[in-house]
Amino acid sequence: LFQLETEADALVNFQHYSLQLPPFYESSGHVLHVEVLQQLTDLIRNHPSWSVAHLAVELGIRECFHHSRIISCANNRENEEGCTPLHLACRKGDGEILVELVQYCHAQMDVTDNNGETAFHYAVQGDNAQVLQLLGKNASAGLNRVNNQGQTPLHLACQMGKQEMVRLLLLCNARCNVMGSTGYPIHTAMKFSHKGCAEMIISMDSNQIHSKDPRYGASPLHWAKTAEMARMLLKRGCDVNSTSSTGNTALHVAVMRNRFDCVMALLTYGANADARGEHGNTPLHLAMSKDNVEMIKALIVFGAEVDTPNDSGETPAFIASKISKLVTRKTLLTLLRTIGANYSLPLTQEAPSEQSSTTTHHSFSLERSQPPPISLNNLELQDIVHISRSRKPAFILSSMRDEKRTHDHLLCLDGGGVKGLVIIQLLIAIEKASGVATKDLFDWVAGTSTGGILALAILHSKSMAYMRGVYFRMKDEVFRGSRPYESGPLEEFLKREFGEHTKMTDVKKPKVMLTGTLSDRQPAELHLFRNYDAPESVREPRFSQNINLKPPTQPSEQLVWRAARSSGAAPTYFRPNGRFLDGGLLANNPTLDAMTEIHEYNQDMIRKGQRNKVKKLSIVVSLGTGKSPQVPVTCVDVFRPSNPWELAKTVFGAKELGKMVVDCCTDPDGRAVDRARAWCEMVDIQYFRLNPQLGTDIMLDEVSDAVLVNALWETEVYIHEHREEFQKLVQLLLSP
Amino acid sequence: LFQLETEADALVNFQHYSLQLPPFYESSGHVLHVEVLQQLTDLIRNHPSWSVAHLAVELGIRECFHHSRIISCANNRENEEGCTPLHLACRKGDGEILVELVQYCHAQMDVTDNNGETAFHYAVQGDNAQVLQLLGKNASAGLNRVNNQGQTPLHLACQMGKQEMVRLLLLCNARCNVMGSTGYPIHTAMKFSHKGCAEMIISMDSNQIHSKDPRYGASPLHWAKTAEMARMLLKRGCDVNSTSSTGNTALHVAVMRNRFDCVMALLTYGANADARGEHGNTPLHLAMSKDNVEMIKALIVFGAEVDTPNDSGETPAFIASKISKLVTRKTLLTLLRTIGANYSLPLTQEAPSEQSSTTTHHSFSLERSQPPPISLNNLELQDIVHISRSRKPAFILSSMRDEKRTHDHLLCLDGGGVKGLVIIQLLIAIEKASGVATKDLFDWVAGTSTGGILALAILHSKSMAYMRGVYFRMKDEVFRGSRPYESGPLEEFLKREFGEHTKMTDVKKPKVMLTGTLSDRQPAELHLFRNYDAPESVREPRFSQNINLKPPTQPSEQLVWRAARSSGAAPTYFRPNGRFLDGGLLANNPTLDAMTEIHEYNQDMIRKGQRNKVKKLSIVVSLGTGKSPQVPVTCVDVFRPSNPWELAKTVFGAKELGKMVVDCCTDPDGRAVDRARAWCEMVDIQYFRLNPQLGTDIMLDEVSDAVLVNALWETEVYIHEHREEFQKLVQLLLSP
Repeated sequence: LFQLETEADALVNFQHYSLQLPPFYESSGHVLHVEVLQQLTDLIRNHPSWSVAHLAVELGIRECFHHSRIISCANNRENEEGCTPLHLACRKGDGEILVELVQYCHAQMDVTDNNGETAFHYAVQGDNAQVLQLLGKNASAGLNRVNNQGQTPLHLACQMGKQEMVRLLLLCNARCNVMGSTGYPIHTAMKFSHKGCAEMIISMDSNQIHSKDPRYGASPLHWAKTAEMARMLLKRGCDVNSTSSTGNTALHVAVMRNRFDCVMALLTYGANADARGEHGNTPLHLAMSKDNVEMIKALIVFGAEVDTPNDSGETPAFIASKISKLVTRKTLLTLLRTIGANYSLPLTQEAPSEQSSTTTHHSFSLERSQPPPISLNNLELQDIVHISRSRKPAFILSSMRDEKRTHDHLLCLDGGGVKGLVIIQLLIAIEKASGVATKDLFDWVAGTSTGGILALAILHSKSMAYMRGVYFRMKDEVFRGSRPYESGPLEEFLKREFGEHTKMTDVKKPKVMLTGTLSDRQPAELHLFRNYDAPESVREPRFSQNINLKPPTQPSEQLVWRAARSSGAAPTYFRPNGRFLDGGLLANNPTLDAMTEIHEYNQDMIRKGQRNKVKKLSIVVSLGTGKSPQVPVTCVDVFRPSNPWELAKTVFGAKELGKMVVDCCTDPDGRAVDRARAWCEMVDIQYFRLNPQLGTDIMLDEVSDAVLVNALWETEVYIHEHREEFQKLVQLLLSP
Repeated sequence: LFQLETEADALVNFQHYSLQLPPFYESSGHVLHVEVLQQLTDLIRNHPSWSVAHLAVELGIRECFHHSRIISCANNRENEEGCTPLHLACRKGDGEILVELVQYCHAQMDVTDNNGETAFHYAVQGDNAQVLQLLGKNASAGLNRVNNQGQTPLHLACQMGKQEMVRLLLLCNARCNVMGSTGYPIHTAMKFSHKGCAEMIISMDSNQIHSKDPRYGASPLHWAKTAEMARMLLKRGCDVNSTSSTGNTALHVAVMRNRFDCVMALLTYGANADARGEHGNTPLHLAMSKDNVEMIKALIVFGAEVDTPNDSGETPAFIASKISKLVTRKTLLTLLRTIGANYSLPLTQEAPSEQSSTTTHHSFSLERSQPPPISLNNLELQDIVHISRSRKPAFILSSMRDEKRTHDHLLCLDGGGVKGLVIIQLLIAIEKASGVATKDLFDWVAGTSTGGILALAILHSKSMAYMRGVYFRMKDEVFRGSRPYESGPLEEFLKREFGEHTKMTDVKKPKVMLTGTLSDRQPAELHLFRNYDAPESVREPRFSQNINLKPPTQPSEQLVWRAARSSGAAPTYFRPNGRFLDGGLLANNPTLDAMTEIHEYNQDMIRKGQRNKVKKLSIVVSLGTGKSPQVPVTCVDVFRPSNPWELAKTVFGAKELGKMVVDCCTDPDGRAVDRARAWCEMVDIQYFRLNPQLGTDIMLDEVSDAVLVNALWETEVYIHEHREEFQKLVQLLLSP
């Protein structure tokens, strides 16, 4: 059965064995089987301090528990761990023996071991749910007992990621709000990124989502290490901007830990990118030392200010200029320069609450500023001052809409799928600079596809910052799998945002039109989804009435979400919505059609004797979803091939030609812009076309956060470079 | 050797044979061979009146011609035909025997047979060119001798379609201008539709193309029975409107003979559709009794007037109303009604030369008119009077261009391949009504593809009636084989019409722009081919300069034919012209881009201090190439198929979708028109969009004359139905 090295050992062991073995062979014949005997001798040898009862538990022979010697040891805890046979049975997950111990041997339930752990702690370590259920039948103090490491059984289950154990403990009424050394059980679940455990706790006690740990005063969100964990909490309504005792938000923590995905999850759920935390640092201050350009860009495009001073009076830009690693510093400063950041140290220190006006500092700091010798672009220092000022967030007066405005303003939003983010970013810049919500700046809003969705968002008073988050979150839901994508998620999203039963005419101002392509006929026709009645036409129709074609739905009957879906049914990306294809096929840039519509609307008004209500259009703002770079094309030739090599060329040519045709059809820049500009200039309408040049061709269904953040970064750079145009635009929009 | 039925016959024959046979077996041993003997006896039997010399020729044995008896018969012509052995040798085409007869037997060359035919007539019937050459060596009166049927050998060759014989006769200096009973040889060639023979005569004597036959005083063209024959003459410059002694033109004849193809050939080469011939009838008078609706339509769309009275005072329309066959009459009258024809009998008769004003007749005839009870449309009698007046051809004053005009006029011509004919027809109507050439009615002309070619035709003072013929003729040359077509014929055609070295700036008024798609880059860009310098832009370019893309050619260097070719490089129809694709990809209706261009041009002028030279645009005329009918579309859905039936649906959906995308891209009506109209209305420009609805979808490369004539017919109907619009347009164009 076993071998020993010295005779002395053998003697000691023999004595020990002779003491321990009798109860076993006296109570069960099984023990005489060589395998069982071997197991028993091994146990005795490995756990010399265990009582026979402990051994019997581990051996798992029920009969033994009727033997008096074993019963007498039922509550024995004279071993190194100080655990009772009951503890062992729980850890082993042996429900039958647990029953024997409790019923025949009168084993005590609430005994703790040397580490302060109860049977529940042991049961959590075991894998048998039944054991926990048996334990739970009797209400017991041990259920919520904190062990020497500061963990209740629930903490332990959360640490170990045992979702089922968490569930059972909670069913036994284990308390979620027992404070352990590192907080509540939910904090433990977050710390170890066990999503199921955390969800279980929140579903049982929704307040847990807001609970703060005692050490840092941090919410579960602070503890989230992955984007998935953060999103789980955010979806369940946790406060994204909750602060820990040091004043840091979860975003501060994610930035400090250099977790880009987490940062994105937090930002897209509305984390304040400019929150001042410990020592007055914003996340951007912290990001500057992280050598992570993507993260810095993400923070800035989500609104972080580059010139907010911390408690030491240092701005993020200044911190960037102090970084020791030369390459990193150069990169960062170049980056900041493109959006006009000031990287000098402000002269005076400010209280964190007084960040509203830093103008004076900048004028002063100019004299002191020593820009590093980087000259990648032509920005001058006054530009930097200007932009750092203009990028200040402004209080948006949503009640400022001037009903007495003598002229109408038109906003036109291009199609472009997820690149609608570019439009959002442009609108945020206009809102910031004007201090007025988009809804109140414009009397007409036209949109195609993604631009149509945004037009509806404007109509329904959704903030653009909110829509930015929505877009980042939506893309992963909607662009899942391969093209054409399931329309379900897109439709769910639209219903969620706009309501399942909301009609187009439910909100009447500003007037909104979405483009759609009526594709149940050839040639296809443009249809406008309006929140007002279509102007009546006095002209003869293009074709005589075809009785097979049913007339379009009236605005008052038109569901908002369906209009959005119809405008955004980009062929090959999504299936058509009934007879509608994406408006982009006929008007990817809706400006010309919006102007046509407004003219026809006004003509109709005049015909109806309401000339006094007609206002002249004075401003047209056309926003794009970013220009792809121009690339040379070698071959669009399609001809009859006479050999295999030519055949290949022809196939390639046909493909290129197809792409060119689609691009000609849907190009929202180029002629669409030239035509609109000429039209506007001829009738003295101020025309603004804003569309940043992107560095790469971004697809309608791009899902990479980094790629999209970069597009928004390029948009920010564009906004800075065209700041005079923006300024002029805002002045015009605000003038009566 | 032979059998006879009666003994009496046998006796007669034996005597005959015994007389005829000796010279043969005396001169040649061959004759004793049974086959030869059989041949000889058959000959003797079949031609009892022939001399031995005749028999020898037919037998073809040279040696016989040294026999004295045969020599003595060498000029014998005592047989039914009255032909000599020489005649027979010529017909047989036996050159060697011909030489024997002439050299050894002194046969006479100029002998004519009973029918008045010479050896040349016989040689033409034979097939041996050598014989004719031998005959021709000696100048002979027989060469041009007219036989009793009034035919010279050349007539005969032309009748028989023996092109080579014609050639040889002409080489022997046979005269083309010998008048036979039915005219010159060329008339014979035309009568029997032998193209090669006719070509041969014309190539030898080009005056023959104008020669008139003595009987009818008809030119060869009158005699043309097929379109091919007519085209052959027309290409060689015959007078298409030459009249016969009765005053009929070739078109009258073609109509009388109900030859639609001929009619089309004549019309496309400029035949006067309204020429008054015998009894003052126009071709349309004659066509009315022919029960050929296509032909009637063709004549009318090519300018035939429905209310020109003949010498009996009957108009074509009136003749139609008299036709006895009810169905035909109904059809014709319905047809005529759609273009507003008056089918009453004018009260007074007119001299053929006074057709300028028939207004009074119509006002009178109204009282008498009894329109048959047909009510297929809503046209009223006054409409009919109006249109019959307005369709009168007017003298076009090409020098009427008013340099003092205070406003600019813009003409825009859509793309559409051979359907450019519709534009031509619309322009002809405008020219007729205004009495001024298009060139002088407009200051700017913009065109895409076929519209571009027409814009250049206008610039180069080509009449639209001429261009109509050119288009009908060109299509057969250019759209030959399968797509993509060879570009050679198209380029040849363009060079022929515009000159190989003509530059865009060679003619400067009106200002012309042709659209082209620069497809060496993605996104593709619009390029305008101008006959003036492009306006300079002060705006930042859409993309930063790409050094790989070479700048476009300057107008002063731009070849006209290349510009036309580039604008008209419709993908899959023709291969691209260098880096250019058809302008239709970006601006199939060029109106918006033309207005944009004019605005930019004027802005540039103002910047350059030439504001006084800038004229406001006051009229925009946009002409289309015909609208295809609207058709319902069932499926443009493209999705991931899960079974074969779905796969088929997806493939079909993808094809439909492709068509829809291309059609959306190139649709010249719909939004393009709505936008242009709204733009014009906003700036007080008079906008006219003229584009007839066609009954069928006509391809860019349609070659059927009947289909195209029908499209032009529909255009005429459209012009009639929109006569008020045309009238208004013309008034505006003519007002200073």
